[in-house]
Amino acid sequence: MTAYPNHGRIDGPIVMIGFGSIGRGTLPLIERHFEYDARQIFVIEPNLDDHTFLAQRGIRHVEEAVTRDNYRALLSRLFPDGKGFCVNLSVDTSSLDIMKHCRELGVLYIDTVVEPWAGFYFDTTDNAARTNYALRQAVRDEKARNPGGPTAVSCCGANPGMVSWFVKDALMTLSRDTGRSDPMPHTREGWGRFMQSLGVKGIHIAERDTQKSTRHKRIGTFVNTWSVEGFVSEGFQPAELGWGTHETWMPEDAHSHATGCRAGIWIARPGAITRVHTWCPTPGPQFGFLVTHNEAISISDHYTVGDPARPDYRPTCHYAYHPCDDAVLSLHETFGSGRIQATQHILDENEITEGIDELGVLLYGHEKNALWYGSRLSIEETRDLAPFQNATGLQVSSAVLAGMAWALENPQAGIVETDEMDHLRCLEVQRPYLGPVEAHYTDWTPISERWTKFDEEIDEADPWQFKNVLAS
Amino acid sequence: MTAYPNHGRIDGPIVMIGFGSIGRGTLPLIERHFEYDARQIFVIEPNLDDHTFLAQRGIRHVEEAVTRDNYRALLSRLFPDGKGFCVNLSVDTSSLDIMKHCRELGVLYIDTVVEPWAGFYFDTTDNAARTNYALRQAVRDEKARNPGGPTAVSCCGANPGMVSWFVKDALMTLSRDTGRSDPMPHTREGWGRFMQSLGVKGIHIAERDTQKSTRHKRIGTFVNTWSVEGFVSEGFQPAELGWGTHETWMPEDAHSHATGCRAGIWIARPGAITRVHTWCPTPGPQFGFLVTHNEAISISDHYTVGDPARPDYRPTCHYAYHPCDDAVLSLHETFGSGRIQATQHILDENEITEGIDELGVLLYGHEKNALWYGSRLSIEETRDLAPFQNATGLQVSSAVLAGMAWALENPQAGIVETDEMDHLRCLEVQRPYLGPVEAHYTDWTPISERWTKFDEEIDEADPWQFKNVLAS
Ligand SMILES: NC(=O)c1ccc[n+]([C@@H]2O[C@H](COP(=O)([O-])OP(=O)(O)OC[C@H]3O[C@@H](n4cnc5c(N)ncnc54)[C@H](O)[C@@H]3O)[C@@H](O)[C@H]2O)c1
Ligand SMILES: NC(=O)c1ccc[n+]([C@@H]2O[C@H](COP(=O)([O-])OP(=O)(O)OC[C@H]3O[C@@H](n4cnc5c(N)ncnc54)[C@H](O)[C@@H]3O)[C@@H](O)[C@H]2O)c1
Repeated sequence: MTAYPNHGRIDGPIVMIGFGSIGRGTLPLIERHFEYDARQIFVIEPNLDDHTFLAQRGIRHVEEAVTRDNYRALLSRLFPDGKGFCVNLSVDTSSLDIMKHCRELGVLYIDTVVEPWAGFYFDTTDNAARTNYALRQAVRDEKARNPGGPTAVSCCGANPGMVSWFVKDALMTLSRDTGRSDPMPHTREGWGRFMQSLGVKGIHIAERDTQKSTRHKRIGTFVNTWSVEGFVSEGFQPAELGWGTHETWMPEDAHSHATGCRAGIWIARPGAITRVHTWCPTPGPQFGFLVTHNEAISISDHYTVGDPARPDYRPTCHYAYHPCDDAVLSLHETFGSGRIQATQHILDENEITEGIDELGVLLYGHEKNALWYGSRLSIEETRDLAPFQNATGLQVSSAVLAGMAWALENPQAGIVETDEMDHLRCLEVQRPYLGPVEAHYTDWTPISERWTKFDEEIDEADPWQFKNVLAS
Repeated sequence: MTAYPNHGRIDGPIVMIGFGSIGRGTLPLIERHFEYDARQIFVIEPNLDDHTFLAQRGIRHVEEAVTRDNYRALLSRLFPDGKGFCVNLSVDTSSLDIMKHCRELGVLYIDTVVEPWAGFYFDTTDNAARTNYALRQAVRDEKARNPGGPTAVSCCGANPGMVSWFVKDALMTLSRDTGRSDPMPHTREGWGRFMQSLGVKGIHIAERDTQKSTRHKRIGTFVNTWSVEGFVSEGFQPAELGWGTHETWMPEDAHSHATGCRAGIWIARPGAITRVHTWCPTPGPQFGFLVTHNEAISISDHYTVGDPARPDYRPTCHYAYHPCDDAVLSLHETFGSGRIQATQHILDENEITEGIDELGVLLYGHEKNALWYGSRLSIEETRDLAPFQNATGLQVSSAVLAGMAWALENPQAGIVETDEMDHLRCLEVQRPYLGPVEAHYTDWTPISERWTKFDEEIDEADPWQFKNVLAS
């Protein structure tokens, strides 16, 4: 007997790829919520730091890196019977290749990012090819080529992931709060028209991480609350966003795509040095970084109405990330020194003394101006809820849990993104781990608080133009 | 008997205006190094927090703000006999008006900034009028109109102030280290030709403050290691710099001046949001903020060779300031929220646990590429050297001490800037308080470490062009 709900039985081996900050946080949730054969849980992880931790729990540690050369053999060996679950929480492994192979093997698959093989982020010279647009499109193309079949859930973390479920909850909230009684849409087209009818111009994935440690960031160390490697990789990808039909202006160095879903543009500068004006409940107005993320494209794509090449409606969507203070300082140092720090540090739940990860979706441009809807999870609450992770980690690992539960219930759904999943069911599984999930309306717009004394090129007529969101 | 050198006798009252972080640090140095009548020391300070501290020391607290309306009456009353020393370490008081009045009274005067009356920084709408160029030029014009007379030392803090003395020391060091045996120049023209002959293209006032407190910066609080009010005021002035003859490119939003010394330009954006590539010994390459400072103009002016309107030679000069981490975060918050924080906090010597203020001059473009010359004063050493201040404060207060000593020795020198003072004598007085004063050569240039993957408009042929220094 357990107090925790049982979300189903995993038949066959569970193979976790990568045991970093998210892997460590996901393991206890898997242990807690699924039935499985405890002798059949494997962790593929080249870093040996956690070997003893795994051994103590009877978990088989495959001390290897997954590579382009070994992944087929390795996974075929670990999944000999065409069943089981592959949970990919690593960096430097190709989500697409591994997902395809798992589907060939008949094995369920989940990840939290469309990750490429090692080297891709920094060795690729063509910036268009380095975008998340390109990475996501490859997965969408594979889905189109091979529809249906064993479920592979793509990008099911906090963001990308949970935030796509929040968008739907937020739309229903907005509909209710504007006195409409819209029934919940059930198709992609329905959701798109629903968002359009509500007058939503765009969405910020608006996050403020206030987690702090007693230890000070040192010069030469990059500090973050989740993967430093992941953050640096995406931070040096081009700034990127889903590009809405209400936009009348485009940055000079912006580029669109001639193929694929057409939902996004990229800007020829690193996302992590590109500031946008955004808003979260705790700080109010703040800078976020325009770091590229899968959900910026997937949400804009998912809610497109009409011909993707000439849509009737599409929302703008992008990440607007204020990471923890130490990460802000780390970025200032990286770009100022022109080199990536040699030492990496992820703030863990033991050293963090206070703070929350406030992660939500800011739906803007509608009748009530703007609505932030999201999770405001504190480190204290996180410690009570689950071991081995900080607040950032729990928002991610609980989304993985939800995605796994959904996949078990929908084992032949093919390749799916979180926008295509049952958000009510997923949030039902995840919500116990999210702390307060709240809706906040605000009167703030990107032009309501600007510096005086210096002229800025601002579109006064339409406050929610991206021109006003992008900071000078 | 005392172990501390006696730098002379101050005849008549000592009136300190302002008793903030710098005033508190300057008082013990005055007490230590000068003879004066202890019953005749006054502090004009509207903030009552330190009243008891002052009373305990028998110092008369004038609980008033100095204003445009009361300054003549107030100072005339406190200096009834046409002698004494006025030490202005306040914000929101006009340096020029007070200096003029002190000279009329026959009283020595010193300050650390050309400060305007309250309201000027944010109420003035014309940006050209809000520059330090304009503020300094008014003092230079007064000097030209009324040469000689009682000494008034303008801008004698760490920077502006001490760094002008460092420039001279650094030039002599560079001359020695390049195998020349130039005699020390003794005129302004001589120094200009000397710098020109050494091939110096420009100077960064390159500062890194690594002081840290155990307490974390809170949202809504602006934290700094010296006046928050002073830093915010200058941070919202236009970015500004002395503009050298080697520059071939100018920012689009840059403006020059049609009158005055012609040495500077300003850029139509706040200095504290404008990043430049710079270098200090501890971090190596780093971002600094292009905050306007008096010395950027005064140094470029002082070392100009030929007709100021069409000079043969002039160095570029500007501040490149990496304030303490909490101040970096504070600025990120100010600009991100579009409003200045309601709460201010200056980190004091009791709460700071570690760190140094590394403040020097980076002379660049010469035969040995670049030379950083400056003070690397730690909080630990500061605590040993003098009470009531952090490392930042001691670099300023000891410059005030040096300027006062020089003024006592040169009481009829008229209005002077630190570039016009005897740098050897001044540094002799100040040096015991500066911790390690060191010369560091570096191979770094503004283009030696840039991000890859994204094209930047860079002048490859001339690494030290301002175009390369200004960060995108
Ligand atoms: N969607 C989201 O909300 C979200 C949030 C956080 C992290 N993530 C993603 O989750 C992944 C893990 O994040 P994290 O914070 O745990 O990262 P981490 O850096 O803490 O851990 C990554 C782990 O992968 C391992 N690894 C590296 N190369 C490998 C290889 N070739 N084969 C197997 N393992 C390898 C590393 O040794 C490390 O332990 C990253 O891709 C990250 O971008 C997604
Ligand atoms: N040149 C340098 O290196 C350097 C360095 C640091 C500070 N400064 C300058 O020195 C000055 C003092 O700096 P701080 O760090 O002590 O600042 P602070 O903000 O700690 O203190 C300023 C003090 O001035 C007082 N004040 C305000 N209005 C006044 C008025 N009308 N009359 C009299 N006093 C008034 C305030 O109450 C406060 O106590 C500032 O102008 C600052 O810009 C120069």
